[in-house]
Amino acid sequence: MSEEATHHDVFTVERTYRAAPERVFDAWADPAKKRRWFAEGEGWTIESFELDFREGGLERTRFRFGDGPPMTNDTVFHDIVANRRVVYSYGMTMSGKRFSVSLATLVLERAGSGTRMRYTEQIVLFGQGREAVEQRRLGCGELLERLAAELGE
Amino acid sequence: MSEEATHHDVFTVERTYRAAPERVFDAWADPAKKRRWFAEGEGWTIESFELDFREGGLERTRFRFGDGPPMTNDTVFHDIVANRRVVYSYGMTMSGKRFSVSLATLVLERAGSGTRMRYTEQIVLFGQGREAVEQRRLGCGELLERLAAELGE
Repeated sequence: MSEEATHHDVFTVERTYRAAPERVFDAWADPAKKRRWFAEGEGWTIESFELDFREGGLERTRFRFGDGPPMTNDTVFHDIVANRRVVYSYGMTMSGKRFSVSLATLVLERAGSGTRMRYTEQIVLFGQGREAVEQRRLGCGELLERLAAELGE
Repeated sequence: MSEEATHHDVFTVERTYRAAPERVFDAWADPAKKRRWFAEGEGWTIESFELDFREGGLERTRFRFGDGPPMTNDTVFHDIVANRRVVYSYGMTMSGKRFSVSLATLVLERAGSGTRMRYTEQIVLFGQGREAVEQRRLGCGELLERLAAELGE
């Protein structure tokens, strides 16, 4: 789609939850829960959301922010270790134009009675650079806060 | 599958071909050609190879080296710009155990009458570290040499 210069980067976000790994993992695996904290939110219109949480399965979200352009997130799950690890790749488009593809690694570790989560995203951007990576990192941090709210924290 | 520590890394391999970008791209897109230079080779047994070269399409290879264990490569194409760029993710297993997932970016640029190819792989490894990354980088370099042979160079 886009033919601009490519930029490769990586970032990590860490977050500790009071909930046990089993509950944190379930919030990623259960379609109703995942939709609630990951896709929905004030100002966002979710046109469709599908989640088939298994290795080789897809997650597809069609959405807009406010009066903004149509956006898509197409995810493929590569590796799932229950309550421990999820590795998936996802591409995003705006107005039908691809602007990023990412490989995301989610690692959950028991920390006392809670969970330490380490999220690493290896990203390739088309026609964007470090500022867009920082924006993505901040967006991921906000999502992990929304996950905390989903867990009642 | 595997539950070992994760290691994230990135490497790049560059190669210039005398062939024009259209011919280089075609060697990635055409199932018979791709199978020939990418999957086959002395000592390798290809049990199955399927390639559906389009965005969202899959490439699946089942193979062994010599008397070695069964291996798999499952690829998903995220972004395809004809004669210019291919972005795909792939996971690999050995004896049914996942050991890596990668995000690969292939960029083709016209260089005179030939093509400059830049291959970037962002990788996550389970229970392996930098030595395995170096091994993968060397393996990719060998594949790009085999592609040269496919192109008659």
